[in-house]
Amino acid sequence: MSSKAITGKINFNTKHLKRGDPLPPYNGKLRVYNMRYCPFAQRTILALNAKQMDYEVVNINLMDKPEWLTRKSAFGKVPAIEINEDVCIFESLVTVEYLDEAYPQRPLLPKDPLRKALDKILIEASGPIHTMMFKTVKMPDSITEDNLKAYESSLQYIQNELINRKTKFLSGNEPGYVDYMIWPWFERIGALKKFDERAGIDSSKFGLLLEYCSNMAKDPAVSDYLLPDDILFKYFEGYKAGAPNYELITEE
Amino acid sequence: MSSKAITGKINFNTKHLKRGDPLPPYNGKLRVYNMRYCPFAQRTILALNAKQMDYEVVNINLMDKPEWLTRKSAFGKVPAIEINEDVCIFESLVTVEYLDEAYPQRPLLPKDPLRKALDKILIEASGPIHTMMFKTVKMPDSITEDNLKAYESSLQYIQNELINRKTKFLSGNEPGYVDYMIWPWFERIGALKKFDERAGIDSSKFGLLLEYCSNMAKDPAVSDYLLPDDILFKYFEGYKAGAPNYELITEE
Repeated sequence: MSSKAITGKINFNTKHLKRGDPLPPYNGKLRVYNMRYCPFAQRTILALNAKQMDYEVVNINLMDKPEWLTRKSAFGKVPAIEINEDVCIFESLVTVEYLDEAYPQRPLLPKDPLRKALDKILIEASGPIHTMMFKTVKMPDSITEDNLKAYESSLQYIQNELINRKTKFLSGNEPGYVDYMIWPWFERIGALKKFDERAGIDSSKFGLLLEYCSNMAKDPAVSDYLLPDDILFKYFEGYKAGAPNYELITEE
Repeated sequence: MSSKAITGKINFNTKHLKRGDPLPPYNGKLRVYNMRYCPFAQRTILALNAKQMDYEVVNINLMDKPEWLTRKSAFGKVPAIEINEDVCIFESLVTVEYLDEAYPQRPLLPKDPLRKALDKILIEASGPIHTMMFKTVKMPDSITEDNLKAYESSLQYIQNELINRKTKFLSGNEPGYVDYMIWPWFERIGALKKFDERAGIDSSKFGLLLEYCSNMAKDPAVSDYLLPDDILFKYFEGYKAGAPNYELITEE
């Protein structure tokens, strides 16, 4: 696929830098402060991949952050993109909207104001999927009936949009903004349901949604960065225990 | 002031509709589903006022919601704007961005992608002010040292932006998107500090920020909708007790 041409050159799996590690010297290339397993940072990576941009990944150990991180990302979080030396943008949705406005190739957000608003609302509607994901790993005993209902409503909301829009992806014939912004939740469901089967998606109710997920996994921007279920499961095991292993697939 | 011409005609202080109350018939005018004391819904109102738009306010009793609310706002929240019958947009920031794109008069968001991103980050940075506000009223005993530090950092972040930008408002010579989006927190501080003085803003540290707040309060889009401290205090007293009085200033 065409996007392989660029993303094949990018090493996503660099060592996660921690306290004491020096800041890699700025080399003029667009840089992403990332964490390989972070679903929010993944949004930024997917947008960059879809736009076939050349960029550099600096992975961060979020349990033991480098001293220089807050100089790049004031809240000490990932993702942050460095667009010029010390000029950084953070918050996942803000980075993606910036990238889409600054780099017009392969537009991701809809141009129509109403459609754009409806796509942003859909991203909000996916919130309970993230809540379910977090609780499934960290505190399964705290999953309430309300969480389960909200999770199912959220899946239903997204599937209904697929039904109403009558397109392969929410954005049309190829994935766009809304598809990439909610994908990180879906990528993790296979691993999550090994922790708690209630995190799974019922194929008798959500056939169309599962077909959509399967199509998304084949998109090159997604597949180049996809983590297999067994790696995600191992990562979550460490995360659950309070000691995530960031170096499961590191390439030196 | 010029915006009085329009906002003077709009009744913000309608009775809050509740379960059993009929849906007011749609009359073709842009409608806001609102709650008079909601800081999020206020963002939408401020944008509409700044743009001198003609619109209609339907206030909602959020403790006893009308049956038809989820037809207009799928998550059952305010604000929602109805732009055509049953075509609604919700989530405060989404409504404002939509309005700014659909109604170009008095542009509110910056056109420059970087500046727009930095303004959105600033809104995120104001999050701890909202957390402090909520805790001050609802659970003052749960205010931690970390909350207090985050509150002060947030105020500092905003004041630093005022210093760096060297303009009367964050958006320039007149208020814009970022100013209106964070204003609702500042409007409430006078009432909040009567609950807990730690919610106040230290004038020895934040002189410029307080001057900014005083300038914001004079902007017609703000002043037309401003609630006096004593009314906000009464509202918060009811809210704290789990029985907010929505009808403190209702005009029939």
